This record gives sequence, C-alpha cells and structure tokens, in this order.
Amino acid sequence: MDSLFSDRITDVPQSFIREILKVTLDPSIISFAGGLPNRQLFPVQALQQAADTVFSQAGMDALQYANSEGYLPLREFIAQRYRQKQQLEVAPEHILITTGSQQGLDLLGKTLINSGDPVMIEAPGYLGAIQAFSMYRPQFETIAVDEAGMDIPALEQVLDRCSPKLLYTVPNFQNPSGISYSSDNRAAVAARIRESHCILIQDDPYGELRFSGHPRENFLSLIPEQTVLLGSFSKTVAPALRIGWLVAPPQLMEKLLIAKQASDLHTDYLAQRILHQYLRDNDLDLHVNRIIQAYGRQKEAMVAAIGRHFPAGVHCTNPEGGMFLWVTLPAAISAMELFHTAIREKVAFVPGTPFYVNRQDCNTLRLNFSCMDSETIERGIERLGQAIQGMMA
Amino acid sequence: MDSLFSDRITDVPQSFIREILKVTLDPSIISFAGGLPNRQLFPVQALQQAADTVFSQAGMDALQYANSEGYLPLREFIAQRYRQKQQLEVAPEHILITTGSQQGLDLLGKTLINSGDPVMIEAPGYLGAIQAFSMYRPQFETIAVDEAGMDIPALEQVLDRCSPKLLYTVPNFQNPSGISYSSDNRAAVAARIRESHCILIQDDPYGELRFSGHPRENFLSLIPEQTVLLGSFSKTVAPALRIGWLVAPPQLMEKLLIAKQASDLHTDYLAQRILHQYLRDNDLDLHVNRIIQAYGRQKEAMVAAIGRHFPAGVHCTNPEGGMFLWVTLPAAISAMELFHTAIREKVAFVPGTPFYVNRQDCNTLRLNFSCMDSETIERGIERLGQAIQGMMA
Repeated sequence: MDSLFSDRITDVPQSFIREILKVTLDPSIISFAGGLPNRQLFPVQALQQAADTVFSQAGMDALQYANSEGYLPLREFIAQRYRQKQQLEVAPEHILITTGSQQGLDLLGKTLINSGDPVMIEAPGYLGAIQAFSMYRPQFETIAVDEAGMDIPALEQVLDRCSPKLLYTVPNFQNPSGISYSSDNRAAVAARIRESHCILIQDDPYGELRFSGHPRENFLSLIPEQTVLLGSFSKTVAPALRIGWLVAPPQLMEKLLIAKQASDLHTDYLAQRILHQYLRDNDLDLHVNRIIQAYGRQKEAMVAAIGRHFPAGVHCTNPEGGMFLWVTLPAAISAMELFHTAIREKVAFVPGTPFYVNRQDCNTLRLNFSCMDSETIERGIERLGQAIQGMMA
Repeated sequence: MDSLFSDRITDVPQSFIREILKVTLDPSIISFAGGLPNRQLFPVQALQQAADTVFSQAGMDALQYANSEGYLPLREFIAQRYRQKQQLEVAPEHILITTGSQQGLDLLGKTLINSGDPVMIEAPGYLGAIQAFSMYRPQFETIAVDEAGMDIPALEQVLDRCSPKLLYTVPNFQNPSGISYSSDNRAAVAARIRESHCILIQDDPYGELRFSGHPRENFLSLIPEQTVLLGSFSKTVAPALRIGWLVAPPQLMEKLLIAKQASDLHTDYLAQRILHQYLRDNDLDLHVNRIIQAYGRQKEAMVAAIGRHFPAGVHCTNPEGGMFLWVTLPAAISAMELFHTAIREKVAFVPGTPFYVNRQDCNTLRLNFSCMDSETIERGIERLGQAIQGMMA
C-alpha cells in the first residue's frame, strides 16, 4: 500500500508531541507538556442553557445543513468585537467560520501554497501551522523571534532572496514561546511586508488573554490589504466546539470558500448556534476576565518558582498573556536529554525541537501554566530545577 | 493578489449548484433542486435531551480538546452497527470520525492523490467528491453507471490503460442518479479491482435509507484489503452536526490520522458526545424507519406523477432508497435550456452537467424527493412535464 500514498503524506514524520504526551499520562508526573485551556473555567452551565434555548427555539433549523460562510449573527458578533476591543472595522462578509483555527491554516495552505513555494514561519513557531502547511509542501523559511519580536534583518534577507508568498505570525503570547512583538517591531515588520507581495497571517488565539502590559497594534490596522487574521473561541469559551474564524480580503475569501466547501461543507451549525446563543445571553468579558485572573496568577507562580529553583544561566520568557513560557538552557544542554532525566523526577515538558522546522536537538523547552494550581507549579518547577542542576553539574 | 493563489484553487470553476440554488429561493417555485434531508424528521427533542444529559454528566470533559480518532464509544457504536446490519467485522481502531463524510473525501485526497494521478469516478458522479478530489489535481477517469451498476468493460479498459490509484463509488442509491449496483455487478467490480493495486472507496451516506428491494454486498466483504468505507449520520440523524466516519486498513489509517490532525485536530467533540448519548438512549432503527416510510411514499408519488405527466421518450430511474431520482431526456433536449423554461413554470431541478467531470451541456437532470409532500410533488412534476412537452413540441 505504501506506493499509493501521496508525496505530501509520505514526507510527514511521526508526531513528536504525540509520543511525548503518551509518556506524561502517568498520574504521578506533573506535566507542563500539555497545551489545553483549563477545563475548570469552561462555562458549562451557561452553554447548557444556551443549547437548551437553541433546541427549543430553532431545533429543526439548527440541525439542518447550513451555508459554508458560517452563521451570520455569529460573524456579526465577531465583527462587533473587533470594533469594540481593537477599533478594527471588519465586515461580517469578510469573516469565514472555520472548524477551529486549525482549519483556517489548512484552508490558507490549500488556497495559497504550491509545492516548493517559499513560506516564512517563526522560529520557534506554532506546531499546528507547520503541520497544516507541510501538507502543501512549501519551502519553509524560518525567521527567529525573541522577546522584542521578529528578527527584522533576517526578515529582510528572506524577502529579498526568495519573494515568499506568506509570513505566518503569532504576535501575541506566541505558542510556544509566550513572547509578543513590540509596537516598534510590528511597525518594522509591516513596513517590510508593505514593500512586498507577501500576505501576513496574524494568528491570534490568545490575544484576549492578556494579564499585564497593554494591547499592541493588530497587523490588519497596519497593512490591511496584506493581512489575514485567524481567531478562535477555543481559548475563551471551549475548544471542543471547534469554532474558529478567518478574516480575509474579498478576492481571497472567494477562493477560501471553495476550499471550505471541498473540505467539510460547513462548520458544525448546531455548535455555531449554541455558541452564538451563549454569547448573546452572557457577558464574554466577565468570563474572559476570570480566565485572565487564573492564568495570570499561575504564570506569576511559575515565574517566581523558576526564580527560586532554576540555576543561573537558564533563561525564561515572562509572558504578558497566553498559556506558555519558554525556557532556554545553557547551549551545551540538550532539552531532549533533560526530558528523559525530568521524567525520572516525575515532571514533564515539551522539548523545543518540534517547534523548529528543521527538527534538530536543541536547548529550549516549553512550559504550560494554564491547567495547574500554584502549589503544583511550585512542586513541578522544583523537580525540574533539580533535573537541570543535575545535568549542569 | 491573483498571482498568489495556488494552482489547485485557480483551476476550480465557480460552483454551478450555488448559482442554481440562488434562483430557486423564490418561494413560488417548487424546487426539486435541493439535496437536504427532511427537517420535519429530525429528532429534535431526543437530541435536546441527549445534549442536556451530556452537559449534566460530562460537561467539562465534553468541552475540552479530544483525540483526533474520535470518541471511542461512538466508534464502537458504528462498529456494532456494521456487525448487526451488514455482518461486517470492523474494529473501532479502524474507524476515524470525520467532520462530515465530505472531510473523509478531503482526507483521502490529501493522503492518496498526487497531482496528475489517475482517479476513477462514476459518470454521473457525486459532486462533493469531484470537488474534494479536484483540490489534489488528479486526472479523473470516468466510468459510466446505469441501473445495473458500473460499466465493467469501461472499468477494465481504464484499469489496463493507466493503473488508477482510486475508484470512487456510491453503490447504494447514488447521488445524483438513485441507481444501485446489482450483486452481479458488485462481484464483477470487485474481481477487476482485486487484480489491481487500486483502492475502492464505497461512499454510503444513504445505505440505511432503503424502502424496497434487499441489501446488497458491501465491498468491504468482497475486497476487504482494498476497500475504504465512508459513512455519515447526516441522512439518518442530522447533518448540522457534521459527523461522518471513515473505515480504512491500519496502514492507511496511520496516514489519515496525520492528515486529520493537520486539517482540524478533531471533529467537534461536544457534537460527538451528544450524538452518542442520543444513540444510546434511543432506537435508531425506529427513527430511520420513519424516514424510510416518508421518503418511500414521496418517491412513489414522484414516480407515479412522472408516469402521468412526462411525455414518452423521457426515462427515469426508480430508486430503491435514498433521496434522488434521475431523468434522461431525449438526446436533442438540453437540460440547461429546460431549466430556464422550467423556472418560468415555477419548478426547479439540477441539470446533469455538474455531475460529470467534463462539464458539458447534457440531457439529464436530478430530482430530489426527500423534502416535499405528495401533493406538492404532483404539482411540481405536472409543471415540469409541461415544460418538457413544450420543448419537445
């Protein structure tokens, strides 16, 4: 059967994360390896009530096939929220509801990437985007990011060298690193992109989860004609529903719609109706604020614990939002080796390797802080600090 | 922006059906153009109850990220139903839950089709499959089907000529034609495929909706190692949920899972839980039987009305199940022209053109009978008969 597989699927390696997560199923292990929102904060009762209302008021309609664009009142809600929160004017017609923002990535790949096309992605970068785009066999060009944002000289160099079609970014509380682009950095990125034919994708699943600092510019306000936005309710309401969205210019939207129809006709319409009912009947700000309070507390606990337990020479990011923090070990230390040591100490994380396109061993790792109380974080970081010290000794 | 689009999306023409359906929104038009299940038959209250149970008993879990394979008890239900209804042994591990069976088609395209690969499809064939596969730019090879099934000499000829990777079939109550392959025909198809390296896809969204005749062999029982099955709850429970499935051999399943993760991580997990709760708490056979009774009655009404109102020289299929019936006009009559005439008579259908890969004008058309009572069917067919007679005069 091997000879029947497409080239695109033959090239994809086994999922590294999958293997990692298997190891961490042992309940005695404190795992910072996950990437899940905290289930304790899901609005279960409010969604239950919303579902009941939808079934009672619109059952037959909510169970039928629906249009590929997505439920219009839900797209209107998203447009209104862009206006309120970011002073962005986005027309509902330019919003496509997607089956999670993962599908947004797939549709963009389908619509834009030919085999061999140069596509720029952050290093480290979001694994789901690497996976989605890989299916369309681009030539990845990586641009380093750090706590100030994107490496502008590197961006310039790649733009000049190969005229890439796409630049994929997560400028707010990036997964995996937790970093955000500064305002100056955004302006510099936008200036370079404006001189090119490149489309910039701003993937923003965590943007609303800011616990310190102040919001920065959305690329849509800086380079409106070259920006595609991806958004998601997975981190603010619930991931199971698989409801994300995509904002794109009309000419691209027309093509994305064809790709959407071919991919799954439309996103679960009952889920769209339930989510919209929930958003109508509840105060999303109030709910998001509860998440921000909890994640902010947990991030503080992790940063403080790291200060107490990690040896000098280990660097960590200090995110202003989101769910992840990024650790850089001394150059000589392999995060993969540390992983095996740490598992023996009953603590887990994701080594940095899968977040780089050229998957080599590296000295970085990702820690998640969304799902654990401060005490567990303290104990886990203490164990991890011991493992690091053991390797540095 | 045009220069940024991928070749695959640039090649796809505007959706023909979309334009057709726009015309039929006029409420004075009797439309046989749709392809929807009858919403009056959706189990609204039972699903409402199931949703309530899921939220009460498993709310937090049902709202979290889930695995890409799909909810195991739902896959076990599907396996058990194959055993009960078709005496097929399918392990739950060989079942992947998909976001509608449309996604099953997309994942198969992603996993199997390289640009230029020969792929066999029925003529006429299912439009959604043509759209999904087109994204991977195969060389379509069409094999004619009629009321006995597939044209075996044509199949042999294509197999010999170009060793295709895939044969896509809808052997039960096909969309668009309503035809089913006979047992002899299935055996003959299986014999030819067995001698090749080709994978046969049996797409079976309507298989449970049989109102006359008796069930025929599933290709999985004839050529188990070369068969992929696609199934769906869209026609038996509700399409809005977008829950379908795919049965594939382990080696292919491994690749499909990678494609699934890259496409949308997993199918709406809340919807999977609600559907499974519904299937646990209710008798699906009883429910499906209600659908069969209604569609069977409506099909009979349509066939009888055609007998009364269509002129001699017009041929219609007489489906044993499903939702569609296929009309062949005298060779000289264009179904596209008839469409415009019929719209003036306030009746609509889908001309056969989009169901052929080489979209030329043709003398065939599709009629849907799932959403209308017998009286409306009688009036609509009378109008259509007059339009046909006008063109034949």
